[in-house]
Amino acid sequence: MHFSSAHEASRLQLNAQGQLRHFLTTEGLSRAQLTEILDTAEGFIDPVSGAIVNRPLLAGRTVMNLFFEASTRTRTTFEVAAKRLSADVLNIDISKSSTSKGETLRDMLWNLEAMTADIFVVRHGDSGAAHFIAGQVTPQVAVINAGDGRHAHPTQAMLDMLTIRRHAGAFENLVVAIIGDIRHSRVARSEIHALQTLGAKEIRVIGPRTLLPKGFELMGVQLCENMETGLRDVDVAIALRIQNERMDSALLPGAEEFYSLYGLTRDKLKHAKPDVFVMHPGPINRGVEIESEVADGAQSLILKQVNYGIAVRMAVLTLAMQGQLAVRG
Amino acid sequence: MHFSSAHEASRLQLNAQGQLRHFLTTEGLSRAQLTEILDTAEGFIDPVSGAIVNRPLLAGRTVMNLFFEASTRTRTTFEVAAKRLSADVLNIDISKSSTSKGETLRDMLWNLEAMTADIFVVRHGDSGAAHFIAGQVTPQVAVINAGDGRHAHPTQAMLDMLTIRRHAGAFENLVVAIIGDIRHSRVARSEIHALQTLGAKEIRVIGPRTLLPKGFELMGVQLCENMETGLRDVDVAIALRIQNERMDSALLPGAEEFYSLYGLTRDKLKHAKPDVFVMHPGPINRGVEIESEVADGAQSLILKQVNYGIAVRMAVLTLAMQGQLAVRG
Amino acid sequence: MHFSSAHEASRLQLNAQGQLRHFLTTEGLSRAQLTEILDTAEGFIDPVSGAIVNRPLLAGRTVMNLFFEASTRTRTTFEVAAKRLSADVLNIDISKSSTSKGETLRDMLWNLEAMTADIFVVRHGDSGAAHFIAGQVTPQVAVINAGDGRHAHPTQAMLDMLTIRRHAGAFENLVVAIIGDIRHSRVARSEIHALQTLGAKEIRVIGPRTLLPKGFELMGVQLCENMETGLRDVDVAIALRIQNERMDSALLPGAEEFYSLYGLTRDKLKHAKPDVFVMHPGPINRGVEIESEVADGAQSLILKQVNYGIAVRMAVLTLAMQGQLAVRG
Repeated sequence: MHFSSAHEASRLQLNAQGQLRHFLTTEGLSRAQLTEILDTAEGFIDPVSGAIVNRPLLAGRTVMNLFFEASTRTRTTFEVAAKRLSADVLNIDISKSSTSKGETLRDMLWNLEAMTADIFVVRHGDSGAAHFIAGQVTPQVAVINAGDGRHAHPTQAMLDMLTIRRHAGAFENLVVAIIGDIRHSRVARSEIHALQTLGAKEIRVIGPRTLLPKGFELMGVQLCENMETGLRDVDVAIALRIQNERMDSALLPGAEEFYSLYGLTRDKLKHAKPDVFVMHPGPINRGVEIESEVADGAQSLILKQVNYGIAVRMAVLTLAMQGQLAVRG
Repeated sequence: MHFSSAHEASRLQLNAQGQLRHFLTTEGLSRAQLTEILDTAEGFIDPVSGAIVNRPLLAGRTVMNLFFEASTRTRTTFEVAAKRLSADVLNIDISKSSTSKGETLRDMLWNLEAMTADIFVVRHGDSGAAHFIAGQVTPQVAVINAGDGRHAHPTQAMLDMLTIRRHAGAFENLVVAIIGDIRHSRVARSEIHALQTLGAKEIRVIGPRTLLPKGFELMGVQLCENMETGLRDVDVAIALRIQNERMDSALLPGAEEFYSLYGLTRDKLKHAKPDVFVMHPGPINRGVEIESEVADGAQSLILKQVNYGIAVRMAVLTLAMQGQLAVRG
Repeated sequence: MHFSSAHEASRLQLNAQGQLRHFLTTEGLSRAQLTEILDTAEGFIDPVSGAIVNRPLLAGRTVMNLFFEASTRTRTTFEVAAKRLSADVLNIDISKSSTSKGETLRDMLWNLEAMTADIFVVRHGDSGAAHFIAGQVTPQVAVINAGDGRHAHPTQAMLDMLTIRRHAGAFENLVVAIIGDIRHSRVARSEIHALQTLGAKEIRVIGPRTLLPKGFELMGVQLCENMETGLRDVDVAIALRIQNERMDSALLPGAEEFYSLYGLTRDKLKHAKPDVFVMHPGPINRGVEIESEVADGAQSLILKQVNYGIAVRMAVLTLAMQGQLAVRG
């Protein structure tokens, strides 16, 4: 399969009025557009109890989860979000369906569209896959990227932004550090774009040289190879998940060594601001990326992230559907 | 398992008032009965936009998909149709359930009924299976045949009829050709019965001699071994899917040879009427049964078929439920 | 994994007001509490038609089925029950999720909670697992035990109690026999506790010595090694399912010998009261635990049990949710 560039993706996701009609990447979206997503998500959180509310905004709409790469966790959050909007949700088992091969992927999509799909939620192991699919579907269908290869995981980035805004405050005052395997992380890519667009004061990435991609300085991001300087005075520290399959490879030291150098421990956090918030996209590896006492401590927002993830996915589903309806006319 | 004759199936599917209470086969249904299905399906299509509408006619009803043979495609269409009628839908994983063996199939059915099922949608690799199951269930449960062996695939046939009626017009003026492996096709069997009952002017089947069943002339169907004569002046050309497992067997030439002889190409279509419509039950094998330019061309109704399939399944679910309720009294 | 005692489970499942907030075991619940479950279940059965009714009592609530041990049958009954209460139901595929290992089971639970779960329905192969999970979740989430190892299967027990009460009458007049592998049966354990609490006149367990656990006399249960004395004058005879994996082991004779000694046949039932009722938790092994004529006969309540199982699960879901809401304040 040939997938086109992220730049094209960012244009593709807006309709003629500049509204979101697909949600493929945080790249190319303006501060106003990202803020609209966050504000819409806030509207799904009860201001008193903090509970996620139900709104039948997608009643009669059909959301299809197309997961070419298994992720029970992400699929479940989209399923919950869609149901809280009263949508009908179908999980399409790609491996059992007639095709997952490139050539006839289009046929599969066209058939699912004809089965009256309104929204495809797409997870794929290849970078650009959600963009490719958005380029193939009819104007009737909105595509939400639920993670594509190393490229983007925009709903994860936006739920992180919502978590930061609700707890740490205005972006322009914040120093945010992202720790771990930045080079291979679609979460990190999406977060950095979102933080920059939302005007974060300073963004740092921390990790071993082999996991820090080149070219990031150009984007205005500080690179740090040790935690002491990297965490100094940060307001928010985000530990990324280390993929087990990369552990003990040439790129990465073993789990114990990684933990001793980059694990987010109470000790290392002393370099950060006293009221630093700790985040992680999950699922966490205790004793690898993070110390249990930190993960479960008072400054951890890890489970808040999961909870806000429902609200953010409700927001993205609702906004993309509105953008589609504007196209349908 | 012993399954009884199609003749019994056609009687079994009507209640004492002659209403549909199961939908097992197009055989034995009158023109009025088939027309009622088509008219009901039309009622689920918005006359202006052409969109499939939602009607809560099965609210509180439980539809169970019993797929003894995997078919994501067909299962999905039934799931969408049931949800658009506000039914609760359960996909029963037969392979994981306590039994799929003949002797205790009855026990499994009785148990699912006791779990308050209203409708079973059944797909099975053995001819007559849906009929067998309809003979076992209590009067409370309606059975819809979603394809049984080589016998019948009646909802596919009816969605084809709806497609023809909406686009090609009145059946009594139409010459319809069905192309490919007629002998092993449940779709072809069901279509031929439906076309005859609805009064099609002429029905032709086209394919290599080994795939044309004997006895079909008796049914008033013309057999053709070449496309030039077979397609002459047809209004509708329906290409069937070639099962890969039959390719290169003694019965069938290779894919390339099949395509050169029977593939539906722009060239061969010149023998048909200029405004011929092209159909295919899907999923299509491009370059085997059909040329891509034909499949994607202006006269192709292939994706319309999928779309109307939702409306037809909504109609069949609704009518069978009504027929059951009449039995329940 | 270390799981604590059944005694703790029974305390854990009540809130400060003595209301059910989890449903883990029949042990430790009072006669009034069990009767409340039965009365609530009755409320979901139409008094005229006997049909299970729909009540939107859990609208907007999210029920997650966590089945660490596959059971299509039990999962389906909970899914139907939850949908009849208008809950959103998610089946979490544990094997595909990020973890099913002890150490991070807590993380998985906390994540699912943060995805706005209200109720976990738990099936696990280890005794005490549901109790362990109930001890881990936040006060926001109710846990229903859908069978844990050899310990308990309380909804099965309660549906059996409902079946007995509706058909055989007041417990204080009843002699009930349970037949088969009592020692390894969570169903038997839960039934015995429920029958004792509800005041059954006499409880007998019948089976080969190797399958009759020690200590049961202390609980006031009569042990019988032969069916003639065991069935004498019983009002209700409950045959348990024999696990195939135990057949032909040192503990159990072969299927034929078991049937000849303990199979519930018309012949052996002559020792019981003439109007004896026959029950079985299903799925039945015809010709092993029970004769087909008995299973399908007029005195069999086997399919009634399945049907009432929907009402009992609706009751337990509703009551546990109410108990949770009282905790939430």
